[in-house]
Amino acid sequence: MAEGETRHMMSDGMMPTRRQMLRAIGMAGGTSALYQAMTSMGHAAETQFKGPPNLQGAREGASVLVLGAGLAGMLAAYELTKAGYKVEILEYNTRPGGRNWSLYGGDTYTELGGATQKVDFAPGNYLNPGPWRIPHHHRTLLHYCKQFGVALEPFMQLNHQALVHQSKAFGGKPQRYRELAADYEGNIAELLGKAIDNKSLDTAMTIEDTDRLRESLRTWGLLDKDMRYVKGMRSSARRGFDRPRGGGVDGAPIPSEPFAFKDVMDSRIWNVVQHHMDGFHQTTMFQPVGGMGMIGKAFGKQVAGMIRYGAKVTKIDQSGGNVTATYTDMATGQIKEAKADYCVCTIPLGILYQIELDASPGLLAAIAAVPYSNSVKVGLEMKRRFWEEDEAIYGGISFTDQEIAMISYPSGGLHSAGPGVILGTYAFGGAAYKLAGMTPEERVEVALKQGAVFHPESYRKEFSNGASVAWSRVPFTLGCCARWTEETRKEHYQTLVAVDNRIVLAGEHASYVGCWMEGALLSSLDAVTRLHKRAQEA
Amino acid sequence: MAEGETRHMMSDGMMPTRRQMLRAIGMAGGTSALYQAMTSMGHAAETQFKGPPNLQGAREGASVLVLGAGLAGMLAAYELTKAGYKVEILEYNTRPGGRNWSLYGGDTYTELGGATQKVDFAPGNYLNPGPWRIPHHHRTLLHYCKQFGVALEPFMQLNHQALVHQSKAFGGKPQRYRELAADYEGNIAELLGKAIDNKSLDTAMTIEDTDRLRESLRTWGLLDKDMRYVKGMRSSARRGFDRPRGGGVDGAPIPSEPFAFKDVMDSRIWNVVQHHMDGFHQTTMFQPVGGMGMIGKAFGKQVAGMIRYGAKVTKIDQSGGNVTATYTDMATGQIKEAKADYCVCTIPLGILYQIELDASPGLLAAIAAVPYSNSVKVGLEMKRRFWEEDEAIYGGISFTDQEIAMISYPSGGLHSAGPGVILGTYAFGGAAYKLAGMTPEERVEVALKQGAVFHPESYRKEFSNGASVAWSRVPFTLGCCARWTEETRKEHYQTLVAVDNRIVLAGEHASYVGCWMEGALLSSLDAVTRLHKRAQEA
Repeated sequence: MAEGETRHMMSDGMMPTRRQMLRAIGMAGGTSALYQAMTSMGHAAETQFKGPPNLQGAREGASVLVLGAGLAGMLAAYELTKAGYKVEILEYNTRPGGRNWSLYGGDTYTELGGATQKVDFAPGNYLNPGPWRIPHHHRTLLHYCKQFGVALEPFMQLNHQALVHQSKAFGGKPQRYRELAADYEGNIAELLGKAIDNKSLDTAMTIEDTDRLRESLRTWGLLDKDMRYVKGMRSSARRGFDRPRGGGVDGAPIPSEPFAFKDVMDSRIWNVVQHHMDGFHQTTMFQPVGGMGMIGKAFGKQVAGMIRYGAKVTKIDQSGGNVTATYTDMATGQIKEAKADYCVCTIPLGILYQIELDASPGLLAAIAAVPYSNSVKVGLEMKRRFWEEDEAIYGGISFTDQEIAMISYPSGGLHSAGPGVILGTYAFGGAAYKLAGMTPEERVEVALKQGAVFHPESYRKEFSNGASVAWSRVPFTLGCCARWTEETRKEHYQTLVAVDNRIVLAGEHASYVGCWMEGALLSSLDAVTRLHKRAQEA
Repeated sequence: MAEGETRHMMSDGMMPTRRQMLRAIGMAGGTSALYQAMTSMGHAAETQFKGPPNLQGAREGASVLVLGAGLAGMLAAYELTKAGYKVEILEYNTRPGGRNWSLYGGDTYTELGGATQKVDFAPGNYLNPGPWRIPHHHRTLLHYCKQFGVALEPFMQLNHQALVHQSKAFGGKPQRYRELAADYEGNIAELLGKAIDNKSLDTAMTIEDTDRLRESLRTWGLLDKDMRYVKGMRSSARRGFDRPRGGGVDGAPIPSEPFAFKDVMDSRIWNVVQHHMDGFHQTTMFQPVGGMGMIGKAFGKQVAGMIRYGAKVTKIDQSGGNVTATYTDMATGQIKEAKADYCVCTIPLGILYQIELDASPGLLAAIAAVPYSNSVKVGLEMKRRFWEEDEAIYGGISFTDQEIAMISYPSGGLHSAGPGVILGTYAFGGAAYKLAGMTPEERVEVALKQGAVFHPESYRKEFSNGASVAWSRVPFTLGCCARWTEETRKEHYQTLVAVDNRIVLAGEHASYVGCWMEGALLSSLDAVTRLHKRAQEA
């Protein structure tokens, strides 16, 4: 992969095409590039939300057809209805939410290829196949969660007590994040301190500045008085003790020995540190109480009467001075039509590409130009919360360079008794396509086998049941989310988001906050604002 | 302050004596040393809890007198009762919990000096004057919270969106933690990268190792392809954008300019980073739902019948083949006695020092040798959660070099409507003594004035009412917690924790987890285990 490409992947959230991605992962030798890809899944820092739009005065009888009852579509319907439009929503699924979705015990899910899973989780437990965490700066989403009464609780992202596994480090034994991060940064501080002592820093710093830099490194990197990162109370206070502090006669702690720097480097811990410090993962993050799908349900209640479920759109025409969508009523097999003056289309691009769409060549080219990423998630229900009870891990993520990429401990029901669902796989790129090619049972088996590296004594013993979603096999999206590159942004983005006669597209694919619910909502607000303006001017 | 002293303060959680501390703070020029002191308030990584003790077979009729119904005393009573002892607890206050304590609306609190505060918080709101957060590795406390049914929720410690204020940095304007931390570490990475390029690192690293170190610095420090920390998508992904990513036509983000390194250094951000990375503050932390005092109440229920409230102990005698405590019944003024075969004394050392105690000269010397720290907390109730609504700050801490040291946003009720209580002051050292010398109203005024630096537009406008606790004026402790030094540990610690004829001391002061509830509990378990052994051998 060229230098430039790497930079853009890492910095911009703009992913290469599927082919480029697979090639990149292949070049880096299997799964070792996954951290990089994961890191680029989350990008920036804030949003452009300025409050809900104040759309008013729709023309008497004006109507809008919304395609898709995901968050973008439902928000469009909600705001357009407030503005006075008559709105109808066509939705392929028999539930609201789209990719905002939780699988609960009793749910049934059939993927492309025909495999059907009956989810067997205990009451209250769930897997979020799609979005699973909400940054504090996703103000649009948080605004409507509050307005629509969705109860939120903290999502734990960074957990110092969680584990990091790199096959070629520490003989394949996972280590605690706190140990690796402390040792990496301690060594960085010591090395820079030495460079200062050698007067080899090529900077314009004064002696005073240099002294302050040394002082800062001592504190930040936990160096001793000789500016060394060594075994002692200072380093153990961050990385942990051999015998922790206690009470009474044997209360005195015994410090731990830092790892050899070479071993720390083998762990590639900097990828995990960077991942956690990224703007999308900074504290405080949230999740809805009871599963991410609670948001889709809450939005669905607001527009309940407008949604026609089980409607598979096959054709979109705007030649007759209005918009006509032809769809199959999946319950009866009947072919039907829905008409309106305008249309907000939130259908994912990979699906939309297969629909006969009456639009400008530019828009059709844009739709064809943006590939979708894949990912696979596996939920593993465990009979007890052994990660909490035995290892004091409450929420957070343990990372691995295996195909499963990570396991994440539930942030809901912390410190409670009973079974819990671990996110046992969140695979990307080549690994995701490999897992998608397996049966759901085989995916669970891979998740168990690879995840056991973190908790070898409990993982299989406590396993109860599992469920998986491979996004390339999800019938209503055929992929996870849109993957723009710098080149496709330049060539197609403005065309994709522009109002095309009577149709405007909305969704995460029509935003720069790709793969996040916030992008879908911001895109939707911008789209309906412009569509309303167009309608007023018509 | 000597080098060695600094090291011990920072690393060991062992604080200098009060005089040493004040001198240290004075030398460092006012409040600038406060971060150092604060950092040393939290120390290590895990605990020595191995499960509850299995004490059995107390002699028929054997009895234990417990002095103090704080957590240490109540746990001792609980476990000794299970072992078969007859237990009575004498408690000065009219509630269980000791320093585990929350102030709610309607509560009244009178400090030494006579100032009485009637707390006026809205229902559900509270100030935790003492402990306020629970590390995930405090297994003893978490064990009994689960056993006694205390509901917990996450406590947010590190918040990237919170602010850092240093009077002499950025013209006194606070900056976001995420901006300062990203810029500090980015510059560290760039500087070390330059040192590598100059081949000036005095290490035995191979070229391969050096290349990998460079690669790690690029990822960890968000450097560009030329190994520079510059304005761009990479650095903005962590520090934030000028115009954040959005949806639709204007979705493209605009990167932000990193601060000048000199300004970053002026902020002394490394102290805050180190504080958050310290073992005591690592994720996941907890707090009880409804206030820390819920723990004291839950413990209190377990030993309800054993506690004699409003009992001020004035004398402890063990000359007659048993232990006799003389106490004043505060409700009636009557002088009374309580007798038992043995005694677990959890009275804080500053109070115990004033009580006539029949014990070995060594124990008396130990009690006299350990000073207590002071701290002052102020709670400020705000009419609305403007920090959440206006600034997307959910929980966490904003730090300042002013006397108030920090403000902390409530971790309970996140994203809810209605009023919230900010911890508006958590002062230490000299600042705490200064604040303790003020009236409660004056303390609230200082908290408002200094805290307004973070939220100038809302702080006074939204203020509703406040409450404060200065620990040097708390009648039942006369201080916050025991401050051991390396020297006093060596000379007095084992004497302090040893069973002295029929009496054993317990509490955070008899542990190496000083100032934390976990220390009190571990000390208590160790004390009752040894006391039981002594009783069996007698």
